[in-house]
Amino acid sequence: MSLLSIGTVAFDALETPYGKTDKIIGGSCTYISLSAAFFLPKVNVVAVVGDDFPKEYMETLEEKGIDLTGLQIKEGEKTFFWAGKYHNNMNTRDTLVTDLNVLADFQPTIPTAYQDCDYLMLGNLTPQVQIDAIQGLSKRPKLIVMDTMNFWMNVAMDDLKRVLKMVDVLCINDEEARQLSEQYSLRIAAKMIMAMGPKTLIIKKGEHGALLFQEDKMFYCPALPLEEVFDPTGAGDTFVGGFIGYLAQKDDVSFESMRQAIVYGSAMASFCVEKFGTERLFEISPADLESRVNEFRELARF
Amino acid sequence: MSLLSIGTVAFDALETPYGKTDKIIGGSCTYISLSAAFFLPKVNVVAVVGDDFPKEYMETLEEKGIDLTGLQIKEGEKTFFWAGKYHNNMNTRDTLVTDLNVLADFQPTIPTAYQDCDYLMLGNLTPQVQIDAIQGLSKRPKLIVMDTMNFWMNVAMDDLKRVLKMVDVLCINDEEARQLSEQYSLRIAAKMIMAMGPKTLIIKKGEHGALLFQEDKMFYCPALPLEEVFDPTGAGDTFVGGFIGYLAQKDDVSFESMRQAIVYGSAMASFCVEKFGTERLFEISPADLESRVNEFRELARF
Repeated sequence: MSLLSIGTVAFDALETPYGKTDKIIGGSCTYISLSAAFFLPKVNVVAVVGDDFPKEYMETLEEKGIDLTGLQIKEGEKTFFWAGKYHNNMNTRDTLVTDLNVLADFQPTIPTAYQDCDYLMLGNLTPQVQIDAIQGLSKRPKLIVMDTMNFWMNVAMDDLKRVLKMVDVLCINDEEARQLSEQYSLRIAAKMIMAMGPKTLIIKKGEHGALLFQEDKMFYCPALPLEEVFDPTGAGDTFVGGFIGYLAQKDDVSFESMRQAIVYGSAMASFCVEKFGTERLFEISPADLESRVNEFRELARF
Repeated sequence: MSLLSIGTVAFDALETPYGKTDKIIGGSCTYISLSAAFFLPKVNVVAVVGDDFPKEYMETLEEKGIDLTGLQIKEGEKTFFWAGKYHNNMNTRDTLVTDLNVLADFQPTIPTAYQDCDYLMLGNLTPQVQIDAIQGLSKRPKLIVMDTMNFWMNVAMDDLKRVLKMVDVLCINDEEARQLSEQYSLRIAAKMIMAMGPKTLIIKKGEHGALLFQEDKMFYCPALPLEEVFDPTGAGDTFVGGFIGYLAQKDDVSFESMRQAIVYGSAMASFCVEKFGTERLFEISPADLESRVNEFRELARF
């Protein structure tokens, strides 16, 4: 089934207790697409970069089955840049630089060939851009999954509430779920957020795993305890990319299928954090993924 | 199989966002024994109280199958008292009062009838008292499980390291595991702690569940997301009481059996937090417990 991924393609500069990087490739759309491409022959992308974005990296993405017809390249402008530094526990980070650059006036133009997509993944973006993206399609996809962040709750809550009514699955972290619902109990928060629109809610809890809610159903997927988390950047995007990639591959959006999709997404994310940036996602094989999923089975069974 | 539970029997005064209590019955040994008694016809107790401890409460415990032959009652002295106040998120609390009273010079005297116990549960106590308890037995139990806390790591680390070499299972929370091992990664922490003596380690993570480690094996049991955590006091003790109670009932200390025991302990703890103090533990039936365990199965399966 066809998957369209809309989000950011960016330069990141990262510093973790294990070291620091120069500008490397990042962005929600990059991680999501690389992760989803594990499950599908092709992933369509709508995003924007400046003319400073390296051609070689585009070719590398295309080799992984990522279609860049929808990648806008703005001549004379610069790619979105984010720099951050992780604290020792890797759970908190400081943003050092955010240069929106081309992202400041990003308008998602969806190529005709993408407009009848079956699965739509909206990475973290301005809620209004997410709305524009949905409205730029020729038909309503079978499943729309969206990410967002606390920043939009602070500055664009009305728009955020509008887009929430248009999507099927919201994927946010525990802190964001608490802010959005104004509830501490995640179970009550989930009820309130699902009443805002999305029939299904995923709450990511980092090293504590992820929760999936739909109606009265719940699934708790643990995170695999790792000896070393080298760089957490992109883990959440890799997770949700694996989630929607798995669903699109199976073309099954039942809750049972979503349980599996959460495990596959968690397994992808567990690889992502083992090296800087997207590096690890280029190394792993389908056999590596199956082996990791089996570790999750062994971890959780009783 | 016979189970001996050694720990504190106390008065607690609690304040949570839902309300506050006068002095109610608490203490590690109380929660552990009440929880373990769900699985066994009899739980033997060694603990100490003052003459202010209510006879009626002793009778209530005895009705639940808790044998109080080993409960020392110190005439003219007062029972251990702890007062605490939970913050809004229920994950952190302030200790308002700690009056050791009879606990200050507690020497565990183990009745002859208890000395050949098969299962020994050492609740949180001075490490030296835990050592004395083990040395007061006529034979080495089949399984010794111990709890401890960060306070003993600060003031009695040498004694703590001695008792760690004498036990089979250590049950602590994630913060304590990090302090004891001086490692942030729980997987590395687990390796280091198991090298200190206990062949098996349980790391409690509160609302994020519990991890079980043994050699290279791992099990991650989620916590059931609850709409309301009314009072978290005693949840960890109820958890470990259910854990050892289940193992003693099955008389099976294999890793497979421990996986089940962790789930039963988690289910018991999920009840405990639904009301103040030990109240909820007196209300639930075996059918309630099985039903709750089935909720865990449904929550975790994929």
